[in-house]
Amino acid sequence: MELTAAQRQELSEAQAARTETRRPTVPALEAMLFEPLPVLDHGFVRVVDYMGDDAAVVQAARVSYGRGTRAANEDRGLIRYLMRHWHSTPFEMCEIKFHVKLPIFVARQWIRHRTANVNEYSARYSIMDREFYLPAPAQLAAQSASNRQGRGDVLEGQEAAEVLELLRQDAMRNYDHYQAMLNLDEAGNTLDPARQGLARELARMNLTLNAYTQWYWKTDLHNLLHFLRLRADAHAQYEIRVYAEAMLAVLDAWVPAVAEAFRDYRLGAVTLSAQMLGVVKRLLAGEPVTQEQSGLSKREWRELMEQLGRAA
Amino acid sequence: MELTAAQRQELSEAQAARTETRRPTVPALEAMLFEPLPVLDHGFVRVVDYMGDDAAVVQAARVSYGRGTRAANEDRGLIRYLMRHWHSTPFEMCEIKFHVKLPIFVARQWIRHRTANVNEYSARYSIMDREFYLPAPAQLAAQSASNRQGRGDVLEGQEAAEVLELLRQDAMRNYDHYQAMLNLDEAGNTLDPARQGLARELARMNLTLNAYTQWYWKTDLHNLLHFLRLRADAHAQYEIRVYAEAMLAVLDAWVPAVAEAFRDYRLGAVTLSAQMLGVVKRLLAGEPVTQEQSGLSKREWRELMEQLGRAA
Amino acid sequence: MELTAAQRQELSEAQAARTETRRPTVPALEAMLFEPLPVLDHGFVRVVDYMGDDAAVVQAARVSYGRGTRAANEDRGLIRYLMRHWHSTPFEMCEIKFHVKLPIFVARQWIRHRTANVNEYSARYSIMDREFYLPAPAQLAAQSASNRQGRGDVLEGQEAAEVLELLRQDAMRNYDHYQAMLNLDEAGNTLDPARQGLARELARMNLTLNAYTQWYWKTDLHNLLHFLRLRADAHAQYEIRVYAEAMLAVLDAWVPAVAEAFRDYRLGAVTLSAQMLGVVKRLLAGEPVTQEQSGLSKREWRELMEQLGRAA
Amino acid sequence: MELTAAQRQELSEAQAARTETRRPTVPALEAMLFEPLPVLDHGFVRVVDYMGDDAAVVQAARVSYGRGTRAANEDRGLIRYLMRHWHSTPFEMCEIKFHVKLPIFVARQWIRHRTANVNEYSARYSIMDREFYLPAPAQLAAQSASNRQGRGDVLEGQEAAEVLELLRQDAMRNYDHYQAMLNLDEAGNTLDPARQGLARELARMNLTLNAYTQWYWKTDLHNLLHFLRLRADAHAQYEIRVYAEAMLAVLDAWVPAVAEAFRDYRLGAVTLSAQMLGVVKRLLAGEPVTQEQSGLSKREWRELMEQLGRAA
Repeated sequence: MELTAAQRQELSEAQAARTETRRPTVPALEAMLFEPLPVLDHGFVRVVDYMGDDAAVVQAARVSYGRGTRAANEDRGLIRYLMRHWHSTPFEMCEIKFHVKLPIFVARQWIRHRTANVNEYSARYSIMDREFYLPAPAQLAAQSASNRQGRGDVLEGQEAAEVLELLRQDAMRNYDHYQAMLNLDEAGNTLDPARQGLARELARMNLTLNAYTQWYWKTDLHNLLHFLRLRADAHAQYEIRVYAEAMLAVLDAWVPAVAEAFRDYRLGAVTLSAQMLGVVKRLLAGEPVTQEQSGLSKREWRELMEQLGRAA
Repeated sequence: MELTAAQRQELSEAQAARTETRRPTVPALEAMLFEPLPVLDHGFVRVVDYMGDDAAVVQAARVSYGRGTRAANEDRGLIRYLMRHWHSTPFEMCEIKFHVKLPIFVARQWIRHRTANVNEYSARYSIMDREFYLPAPAQLAAQSASNRQGRGDVLEGQEAAEVLELLRQDAMRNYDHYQAMLNLDEAGNTLDPARQGLARELARMNLTLNAYTQWYWKTDLHNLLHFLRLRADAHAQYEIRVYAEAMLAVLDAWVPAVAEAFRDYRLGAVTLSAQMLGVVKRLLAGEPVTQEQSGLSKREWRELMEQLGRAA
Repeated sequence: MELTAAQRQELSEAQAARTETRRPTVPALEAMLFEPLPVLDHGFVRVVDYMGDDAAVVQAARVSYGRGTRAANEDRGLIRYLMRHWHSTPFEMCEIKFHVKLPIFVARQWIRHRTANVNEYSARYSIMDREFYLPAPAQLAAQSASNRQGRGDVLEGQEAAEVLELLRQDAMRNYDHYQAMLNLDEAGNTLDPARQGLARELARMNLTLNAYTQWYWKTDLHNLLHFLRLRADAHAQYEIRVYAEAMLAVLDAWVPAVAEAFRDYRLGAVTLSAQMLGVVKRLLAGEPVTQEQSGLSKREWRELMEQLGRAA
Repeated sequence: MELTAAQRQELSEAQAARTETRRPTVPALEAMLFEPLPVLDHGFVRVVDYMGDDAAVVQAARVSYGRGTRAANEDRGLIRYLMRHWHSTPFEMCEIKFHVKLPIFVARQWIRHRTANVNEYSARYSIMDREFYLPAPAQLAAQSASNRQGRGDVLEGQEAAEVLELLRQDAMRNYDHYQAMLNLDEAGNTLDPARQGLARELARMNLTLNAYTQWYWKTDLHNLLHFLRLRADAHAQYEIRVYAEAMLAVLDAWVPAVAEAFRDYRLGAVTLSAQMLGVVKRLLAGEPVTQEQSGLSKREWRELMEQLGRAA
C-alpha cells in the first residue's frame, strides 16, 4: 500500500483540519481518522467519517431528548441487554464510512452484504492501478481434503514456488496488455498516435480477479456487526477475514461498550440446536451419551464436542 | 409542542456542548442542531446528528483520499450532473438523524419508506403522552368530489364546529380511559391499590390514531431526497407534507448545492410520457393538437396543459 | 371474521380455478390456498400465492439447471446444513404472499420488518370496516410487575369487566363518530345532503388502534423465518404471536424440510454467550458454580438455568 | 452457450413436467419457462419461476379477496395510473426468478442493484467453466473522445485484430494456469499425484474478468422495472444492455399491460428540469430562445434539443 505524494498530501490536510462541533465525538476514533490501516499486500481500510457513539445507542433506545445523565455503568448494562435480546434498531443509529482498497475477488464476496452504501472506483471512467494481490507464503494453502470450500496445509517447495510465479506473471502480463489495448504507456501517455485505444469499459475485462479496486463503504453499526460476525469468523476466507479484523480494531476504538457486548454475545457465543441442547442436558445429568444415541450427525457431534472442549 | 423542564434542560446541555473534530462540519446545520422545529399543533422535527456535506458527495463520487482542492463551482457542477443522471450512490454517502414527534396516522404513512432506520417510543414499555392532533380550522377539509383520496373545500359553520368537537372529545375521553385502565392518575400514580391495571401493551389500543408518538429516524441523503420528492409533493396529505417542508429547510442548511440541484431536477421537474412528448413536439411544430387527437386520456391532457401553463 | 357474500363468492371462484403449470407446486399448500385462517376475533391470514418449495432451495444453492434427481434425503441434509451455518441466500429463493386482516396496533409492530413488500388497504381512499379487536377474557392481562414490557396475571372480576366495557364502548363510539363526520349512515349513504362530510384522510384519525386493517404482505422465505423467529417467540406480544403461529402452520405445509430445520436450529435452539459457555464447561467438568462466581448477571444466570432445565 | 448433455436432460425434464395449480398462470410465459435465451457469446437468461401477473398488481392495489370480475380494460387503466403516479407497492406483488450466465465484469455492475435475491455459483466450492466473453467485431469499440465513460467508433484493421488476440490468449492462458494450479487436467482429474493443488478459493483469482459466472437472480416486478430502466437505457454498457433487452422480452410475455405502461411512462419518457420546462414554455409562446439565455448548460441544452427533435 503506497500512496502517491498527492494522496499523502490530501490525507495530511484532512488530518490536520479541526473544527468545532456540537455532535458527539469519540477521541479514540478521531485519532485513527483518515489513516489507512494496511491489510494484505496493497490493501487498506481507513475510517473517513462516523456518526454516534455508545451513548447514541442508548439515547435512541430511550428516544430521549438529550445525552442523558445516567451512569456509564447503566448504559453498558442496557447495551448488553439489547445485544443479548437481538434488538437491532438502536444499533442502527450509529453509522460509519470506510474507504477500502481490496482485491476484486474479495470485493465480490463483500458486496453480498446488501445493506451498506457503496461507491466504487469506476473502471469504465478511470484507469486501474497496477496492483494485484499475491499471497504471502504462509497463505498459499492447498485445497482442503475434508471441506470442499476450505483450505488445507500450506503448499511447499517446488509447487509453492511455481504457483506464486504463475500468479505473478499472469497478473503482470494481463496488466501490460490492458495498458497496450488502451494504447497507453506506463506514464499514461498515448503510445501510438495512429491508434484509438480500446474503450476502458472493455479493456478492464483483461484484468485478473486479484487486481485491486477501491470503494467507499458506509454502513450502520447493526449491519457492521452482522458483517463482522460472518467475516471475522474462522470459516471466512482468510483474505476477507483480515479486513474484518482491521475493522474490529476500529470498533473497539469507536464504541467500546458495544464491542465488548458483541464479543461476548456474538463472536464468542455458540448456538445449540434443540438436539444439541438435549445432549448437554443429558451430559449434565451425568448420563453417558454417544454420537449414535445423540440424534446428531457425526459432523454436528464433532462440532458440539469442540465447542464444549471435550474429546469427540 | 411543549417540552418539560427536564427535556428543555437535556436539550440545553446538548446544545451547549462543544468538541473538536476532524470530520467535516456544516456551521449552518450546527446552528440548528437539536432545536425542535415545530410542526402541526404538538409535533416537531429536530436534527440529532449528521454525517457529511456537499463535498462528501463529491469525494465519494471521485473515491478520493481527501477533501480535494477543486473550486466549489466544479463541485456544484458535478453534483448537478449526478442528480440529472439519477446517480444514487454518491448521495448515499451523507447521513442524517432526526427526532420526530408526529401523530400515529402520519407515522403509518411515513414508515412505508423502508430504507430508513427507525427507533420508536415503545407503548409496550412506557406511558404515552396526553397529546393528539386536532386540525386547525383551515385544514378541516371536506372530502374531494373529484379525487377519491384528496381534499375539497374547507368545512365551515356548524359542520366544522361539530367535527372538531367530536375529534377533541373522543381523543380526550379515550385517553382518560387509557389511564383508567392502567389504573393511573394524571400524575402517573396508582389510582386504586386494589386493582392491578391493564398491561400497557393492551391499554394502548384504546388510543386514537391522532395520538402523538415519537421516533428517531435516520436516513441517507439519497433516501431523504426520495422521501421529500414524494412527501413535499402537492398530492401528499397535508399532515405529512408539513414535516417534509420542515426537513427541506434542514436540507437547505445542510447541503445547499444538493438542495439546489434537487429543486431543479426533482421538485420543479416534470416527466413527460412518450405520448406527452409527442404532443409537445407537434405543438412546437405549430400543429394544432386537441385532446381527442393526442392519444392522452382527458386526465393526462389536463395534467399536461397545466404543466405547460396552457388553457386545457 | 365474517366475509360478505361478495367476498365469499370471490374466494370460491379463486379456489375453484385450476390451470396447468410447469412450475413447482406444493399440493399441501394448494389445498390451503386462498382460505382465511382465523386469528383473534376478526382477523385472518390467508395464502394468496407462493413461489418455490423445498427443492427450490436446493436448486438455487447448487445453481443447477433443473430439479435434480438426488434423493430427498440428500436434499434434507443440505437444507439442514444451510440452516445450521446461517446461509441465507438459498432460502431467499422461495416467496410467499399473504392477505392479512389485523388490528392496527399489531400492524404497527409487524411493519417494522422492513424487508417485505406491503400493500395496505387505504383509509385515505376507502371507508374502514366497523371491526375492532377486543381481547378474550383469558388475554385481558395485567401489567407484569417484573418485566416492564410484559404481561402478568389475567385481570378478574370487576376490573376485567370494566376494562372490557371501556374498550368496547370507546371503539364503537369512535367508529360511530367516524361515520358521522364522513356524513354517512351505516349503509354508506349520505346522511345529510346539506353537509359535505370530512375528508376520509382526516376522519380516520378518530379510529382507535384496535380497529382492523388489512394488507397484502409478501416476503421471501429467509425473511419469513426471521419474522417467525422473533414473533413466534414467547417474548412477542400475544396478539402478533398468534399470527406467527398461523403462519408456522403454513410453513409446515409449504416447505416441510425447511420447517423442520427451522424448528431444530432456530425456534428450539439457544444461544450461549462466551460467559454462559464457560459456565456449562465448568459444570460438565463437575465443578460447582454459583451465580456469584459465574460472571453472569442474576437475570442471565436465571435464563441459563432455565435453558438447562436446572433449578436456579 | 452450450449446455452439457446432462444439463439439457435436466432442462427437458423440467419443461416436460406439468402439474395443476390454483395460482394465476401466464401461458405466454409458461411457454418460455426454463429455456435459455442466448445473450453475448456464451451467456443466457432463463426464467426459472414466477409469481403473479397483470391482474395480481390490480388485486393488490385493491386489497381484494379474489381475482375480480372487472373488465380487462379497467385493469389496464388502473395499471397505467399506478405507473404514471410512481406507485411502487402494487408492482412489488409480482416476483420473477432468473438463472443467468454472464461475464464477471457484467455481474459486478449488475450486483449493485441491491434489492434482488442472488445466489451465485461458488468458485470457493466448485471449478469454474472454461468460458469467457470475447466481443464480436462490431462491439470492439474505441474509447469515446467526448464521454469519459463511453464508447466511440469501432476499432478496425490491425488494432482490432491485435486487441482481440490479446483478449483471447490472456483468458485462455490464465484458465490453463488456473487448472494447473488446481493440479487438474482438462477432464478434472488429478494431474500430478505428488502435488496437493492450490485451494480453489485462491486459484480463482487468476481468472480474468471476462470469465463467465452464473447465478440465480430473483426480484419483484417493481425492482425489475427499475433495473430495466437503467440497464436497457442507451447509456448503459452494451454488455449489460443486451441482458436487459432479453428481460424486456420476458416482461412483454409475462405482464403485457405493465410492460406497455412501462414503455410509455418510463422507457420512452423524458424528465424536464425546472429550467428546461421554462425553455419549452417560452418556445411554445413563440419566443426565440438561445442556449445563452436559457439558463441551461451547453450539455443540457444539447440534450433538450435532442429530446425535442430540434437542431441544437
